[in-house]
Amino acid sequence: MHIAMDAASLNAFMHAEFPQVAAQFRVERIAPMEADVRLMVDEQHLRPGGTVSGPSMFSLADLAMYAVLLGMIGPVALAVTTNASIDFMRKPEAGRDLIGRARLHKLGKTLAVGDVLIVNEGSEAVLARASMTYAIPPRR
Amino acid sequence: MHIAMDAASLNAFMHAEFPQVAAQFRVERIAPMEADVRLMVDEQHLRPGGTVSGPSMFSLADLAMYAVLLGMIGPVALAVTTNASIDFMRKPEAGRDLIGRARLHKLGKTLAVGDVLIVNEGSEAVLARASMTYAIPPRR
Amino acid sequence: MHIAMDAASLNAFMHAEFPQVAAQFRVERIAPMEADVRLMVDEQHLRPGGTVSGPSMFSLADLAMYAVLLGMIGPVALAVTTNASIDFMRKPEAGRDLIGRARLHKLGKTLAVGDVLIVNEGSEAVLARASMTYAIPPRR
Amino acid sequence: MHIAMDAASLNAFMHAEFPQVAAQFRVERIAPMEADVRLMVDEQHLRPGGTVSGPSMFSLADLAMYAVLLGMIGPVALAVTTNASIDFMRKPEAGRDLIGRARLHKLGKTLAVGDVLIVNEGSEAVLARASMTYAIPPRR
Repeated sequence: MHIAMDAASLNAFMHAEFPQVAAQFRVERIAPMEADVRLMVDEQHLRPGGTVSGPSMFSLADLAMYAVLLGMIGPVALAVTTNASIDFMRKPEAGRDLIGRARLHKLGKTLAVGDVLIVNEGSEAVLARASMTYAIPPRR
Repeated sequence: MHIAMDAASLNAFMHAEFPQVAAQFRVERIAPMEADVRLMVDEQHLRPGGTVSGPSMFSLADLAMYAVLLGMIGPVALAVTTNASIDFMRKPEAGRDLIGRARLHKLGKTLAVGDVLIVNEGSEAVLARASMTYAIPPRR
Repeated sequence: MHIAMDAASLNAFMHAEFPQVAAQFRVERIAPMEADVRLMVDEQHLRPGGTVSGPSMFSLADLAMYAVLLGMIGPVALAVTTNASIDFMRKPEAGRDLIGRARLHKLGKTLAVGDVLIVNEGSEAVLARASMTYAIPPRR
Repeated sequence: MHIAMDAASLNAFMHAEFPQVAAQFRVERIAPMEADVRLMVDEQHLRPGGTVSGPSMFSLADLAMYAVLLGMIGPVALAVTTNASIDFMRKPEAGRDLIGRARLHKLGKTLAVGDVLIVNEGSEAVLARASMTYAIPPRR
């Protein structure tokens, strides 16, 4: 099972396609059926008390799944999320980046299914767990 | 079943507690076990092609559940989402606000469970459907 | 939006295709994008204490979605569940049937998405809420 | 992190508490925050064509989470599932047992959250993936 795009290519692709979003994230690692993506936490992601907001964690899970999918199939900008289920378990620590570790369980012709574990950088405690399904548009 | 906070009180509370978030949303209606919340769509919510991003729809679902919960139990800033499951079904239309219609199915002492239907203003087609669980902190 | 199969046709179809399963259920009502299905609760569905088991409620949600889907598109035995998300909120009462009320939100060519509310017969309290996605096989 | 009940104790406990259910399952392994549970597939779990039914896979996921939870906290018969989200990805093969591999991500005082991967015995292909939340009753 080979990789279609590496981390550098993915970062370049996302900066070209979604510049506002891509500025907040960095793909750190692409491996067969796996990706690690960093959310560079700043003011816009925080809630009072310094914790990272739920929608910011949702964004990270979504982007990590998108990264592993494109890592496997190449640049398909129009892949879209059809289902996401997230459990929020622990509060993120203030002032530390978040890492989303995505793993694909199924890569079909029209659907891809995987899950994402979100941790604080340098910690193993799972802050949130997401399962995501992406619809892959027909390729010409 | 009476209401603890009406729409005006909720909008005031959210502007005081979460000013950045509250500026994007407006609680339109609170009724027993129900709330309607508007996402005032602007540039920050859009993806290329003009559609509203998934994380923006997640935020709307989350805020609509928070609104119906606080509408029933009063101002409890620290209620937190523990689980969210979303189906994305249709692309939002560009240039129109989104409405999230939340309904509580269970309001227990420690957990509240409900769902949210997201539509474009003036349309009945469901764009996304979310179910959400909130943990309610013990009250003193 | 017209109905492809009514309740009587659906009950006959399911008895022919899935006799063991169909003996436990009865489609009570089919309307555009809606179906009500009864689980005829007996010993096999109970847990100690007399409550209906979680897997039995899952089966009811699954069958209610299958019923509304076939009610709309006709007898497609091979439609399969791809995602299900269930919140269990209240214990069913012993000795009363369960009703699953399914509603389709999207009926596409390859995917159907809907939700199901489960109540005890004669009660409005929601015992469980499920969202389900079915994959529809290509039609010849 | 020590184990409160091993696989043999769990099997004995479940046979005493839920004899009908327990006859279909066997806890194979308990480790810190992990459990493997086997569904001994027979006629009652099959759908036409020989595939294992969705509700049977739901039951396995549910029981595997219950096993890892009790493995960690000891015999608490009344722990109940509050949320389950399942992705069904591949058809099980006929005539082979299923293994559910559960992993706890959070073990709190009142809630436990984990996920379960379901495979055919002797295969690594993930057939279904479930995330489950259990409510733990207050201990006296």
